[in-house]
Amino acid sequence: MMQVPLTVGSMLQHAEKFFAKKEVISQTHDRLHRLTYADIGQRTRRLMSVLDELGANSGDRIGTLAWNHHRHLEIYFAAPGIGAVLHTINIRLSPEHIIYIINHAEDKILFIDEDILPLVEAVQDKLTTVETFVVMTDKPELPESNLKPLYSYEELLQTGDPTYSFSTDIDENDPAGMCYTSATTGKPKGVVYSHRGIVLHSLALGLADSAAISESDVSMAVVPQFHVNAWGTPFACTWFGSTQVMPGPRFTPKRLAEFIERFNVTITAGVPTIWLGLLRELEQGNYNTSSLRAVLCGGSAAPRGLIKAFEEKYNIPFYHAYGATETTPLVTISRLKSYQQDLSMEEKLDERARQGILVPGLEMKVLGGDGEVEWNGEEMGELLLRGPWIANEYYKDERTDSAFVDGWFHTGDVVTVDAEGTIKIVDRTKDLIKSGGEWISSVDLENALMAHESVFEASVVAIPDPEWQERPVACVVLHEGFAGRIEKDDLLEFLQPQFAKWWLPDDILFFDEIPKTSVGKFLKRELREQVKAHYNMQN
Amino acid sequence: MMQVPLTVGSMLQHAEKFFAKKEVISQTHDRLHRLTYADIGQRTRRLMSVLDELGANSGDRIGTLAWNHHRHLEIYFAAPGIGAVLHTINIRLSPEHIIYIINHAEDKILFIDEDILPLVEAVQDKLTTVETFVVMTDKPELPESNLKPLYSYEELLQTGDPTYSFSTDIDENDPAGMCYTSATTGKPKGVVYSHRGIVLHSLALGLADSAAISESDVSMAVVPQFHVNAWGTPFACTWFGSTQVMPGPRFTPKRLAEFIERFNVTITAGVPTIWLGLLRELEQGNYNTSSLRAVLCGGSAAPRGLIKAFEEKYNIPFYHAYGATETTPLVTISRLKSYQQDLSMEEKLDERARQGILVPGLEMKVLGGDGEVEWNGEEMGELLLRGPWIANEYYKDERTDSAFVDGWFHTGDVVTVDAEGTIKIVDRTKDLIKSGGEWISSVDLENALMAHESVFEASVVAIPDPEWQERPVACVVLHEGFAGRIEKDDLLEFLQPQFAKWWLPDDILFFDEIPKTSVGKFLKRELREQVKAHYNMQN
Repeated sequence: MMQVPLTVGSMLQHAEKFFAKKEVISQTHDRLHRLTYADIGQRTRRLMSVLDELGANSGDRIGTLAWNHHRHLEIYFAAPGIGAVLHTINIRLSPEHIIYIINHAEDKILFIDEDILPLVEAVQDKLTTVETFVVMTDKPELPESNLKPLYSYEELLQTGDPTYSFSTDIDENDPAGMCYTSATTGKPKGVVYSHRGIVLHSLALGLADSAAISESDVSMAVVPQFHVNAWGTPFACTWFGSTQVMPGPRFTPKRLAEFIERFNVTITAGVPTIWLGLLRELEQGNYNTSSLRAVLCGGSAAPRGLIKAFEEKYNIPFYHAYGATETTPLVTISRLKSYQQDLSMEEKLDERARQGILVPGLEMKVLGGDGEVEWNGEEMGELLLRGPWIANEYYKDERTDSAFVDGWFHTGDVVTVDAEGTIKIVDRTKDLIKSGGEWISSVDLENALMAHESVFEASVVAIPDPEWQERPVACVVLHEGFAGRIEKDDLLEFLQPQFAKWWLPDDILFFDEIPKTSVGKFLKRELREQVKAHYNMQN
Repeated sequence: MMQVPLTVGSMLQHAEKFFAKKEVISQTHDRLHRLTYADIGQRTRRLMSVLDELGANSGDRIGTLAWNHHRHLEIYFAAPGIGAVLHTINIRLSPEHIIYIINHAEDKILFIDEDILPLVEAVQDKLTTVETFVVMTDKPELPESNLKPLYSYEELLQTGDPTYSFSTDIDENDPAGMCYTSATTGKPKGVVYSHRGIVLHSLALGLADSAAISESDVSMAVVPQFHVNAWGTPFACTWFGSTQVMPGPRFTPKRLAEFIERFNVTITAGVPTIWLGLLRELEQGNYNTSSLRAVLCGGSAAPRGLIKAFEEKYNIPFYHAYGATETTPLVTISRLKSYQQDLSMEEKLDERARQGILVPGLEMKVLGGDGEVEWNGEEMGELLLRGPWIANEYYKDERTDSAFVDGWFHTGDVVTVDAEGTIKIVDRTKDLIKSGGEWISSVDLENALMAHESVFEASVVAIPDPEWQERPVACVVLHEGFAGRIEKDDLLEFLQPQFAKWWLPDDILFFDEIPKTSVGKFLKRELREQVKAHYNMQN
């Protein structure tokens, strides 16, 4: 067979030719843009020539600090298109971590959204490698800024060559992208994505039994483009010719609901927090969401009540998916098998609340205390992964050694697997509660609590216990109107029939808000500190 | 990212784990078998250990002379599973060509269906490399045969190790399969498929916008397993967990129709001749075909009337696809784009009669007399292809040089491309009729003729002409009951409004049958000889 490399650039070139008329609908600060893939292709080619002019070479890292919009998409293809590396930076991290990431990746050029300029201005003195700043703005003039040299994206594009060619000198194992993931302790860890990894992952997203991304789709990635490349959807959607809707900066649940109705969105992807917010909006407003064929939910496990609301009340299929920054990210997706279609609605919800089966192309094993666990839906163990879109290291980072062992990525996620091969995330290895030598799953308790009508969010953490080593404490945010009407005992009584007695939380604390990571996951480390402070415990 | 090779064996291992209960339903000579993927996995492991015992080494060619059934499927995975090469042999070729193919490929072991034994017995003295024969039979004893040494497939499997492991010492560019394609002149030409090519091709088959092969499918490949690996469907269907129905030896249209109804077949694949036969059967019998979501048609262009009957009369979506032995084979598939859904039924049929757009992962260009042609649906040129599942040579064959030039495969197919990127096969380069310096498409004339109610099949060939260089003559087979009622002039009158005057055939000849290749394509070379003989022309 021909030795033709799998490259990111080839995906956009396919769209330029075969989906030239299809649209990218992009909300920026100032207005809504509608561009075709012919436009995006030409602008990306201009941008490649601009990168070349700015001195970007093969292998150089090109950083972005940006929301979801078409210019960000263009960089997705232009950076790998010249053999450079797209480095998306999580704008919600602390300044300290942002400085670390940019310096550690050695970003040469930074593309920055207008409203994120102040964040970069505040840290620019600490940036050791950046040579050029580019601001992405709709306005005719450059905004006031002390960043230097600072260029306007659109002005640069004017000077670019719309017929510039994608590099043909790319090995498919060359880096195409990178993304840093927050660590429990210490600095963020960098993950590098190869051209090959991104292309194979895009094929996996297009499979009929995974996300089935199609030309007929109108896809709205709510998950940020700085969060594992918006789960790879911009690559796959471009390649397969889907219409893409980009909700832009500082969107609200209202804007999401409006965009779904206005643009007939068929598939959308985001973390549970987003869907909790959207659900509230749908309950208040009067939106037509009948175009939606799939809500993809990842990042952390969705509460059963949330899934039930989407599926039963709004008739919107809700697909749990599972992955990580280290896995590009798609690992599993929950789709019912043909012979599971006869299950009752409740049984189907049980399935939906699991993370699904491994997508074709990957391998997994689950390691418990005594080697690989039985696939019986009961035994817990850590999920290990292997495959062509799984990272093999953290970028220039000693923590590689503990996570990548003997050719397997140790996810740190504790799962069970049932006889169908369906995995269920039980916990993070470090969040499991070890009580009296046995394991208690914080996730199971959280899901049970969130099924109570009064509970908006619940997070369960371990506190030290002299007798049992650790004991669970639940932290709960109530829905509006329930404060003062629901007590600890109401919830304990609700949990009691569902769990062994020793699983029940020792206490239930009520919070206004649960601290979250920049990508919407519960920040258990911080919550644990708050809980311990509440009890006046020592660290 | 991890360096994990794409291997054929990993596909079956995925099915063993995640689709263990799903079935392969296989018709052999004697009976219907129902096996699960757990069974197939275990039997394939046994077979791998048997191959090992029989002395098959990495890189050795393992030949098959067999219909579509589960044992053939097991060899599909067992041969590449130990690093050897699956060589499927077209049982409909002449003995001379079969001898050539087996010797040229240097097959070490031959797996033979019971009813094909006589064919091999007749040529065994000429086979220079085969060391072992294995007969695939349901019967408890070996059939009478003078082949030596001859083993029974099932007896060998009894001795095999059901826990034998797939080789982990495979480079994804290693050969996994091979298939010979008939040449216009001379011996058949061998094409080698790599593990990488087969895996990527399987992903392409699973994409939502190509064949969308899914766990929920019941797939019946009518296209023989010796014809470009049944278009790769057994690999993809196994990987994605589809139920597979295998119609076995010497099936009839009646059996196909019965199997569709009985097993709720959702997708089926074959050449136009098969669908013409099935259509006749559907018109005579009373079958429920409502389970069918797709008829895939390739090998040669389907007449518009055939497509119309499936789509309008039976409400069965009919997908033209295009490919070749050299292309694994999927190259294009005709699926309407979202904005083409508003077309009239007639316009949709026009689209269906084209071959569709390139599947993601491949590149194409169309070369006319003056370089690349415009995508205007008018200009004709030869289709050139490039991609990771396109061959880069004919196996040990000098004809490589004319077909594989500067990194592109020259298909020999003449196409037009419209503004949507949809290709339409106009002709084979060698079947185009050159009249007075202009090109006439034999395929266009054939399709027009086949739209006449009386015409069952039509093939148009060029005959030498002193004045115009070449002129078209049409060869027509009439539907039953039309013989004697339809004359040449009726058909010419029917064609007249549709074509320029100089395109109209000089003559129309009526045949009982049109000679076809072993895979159901018109054998124009032979037909041309018959026509010339009819006119007493010299060669």
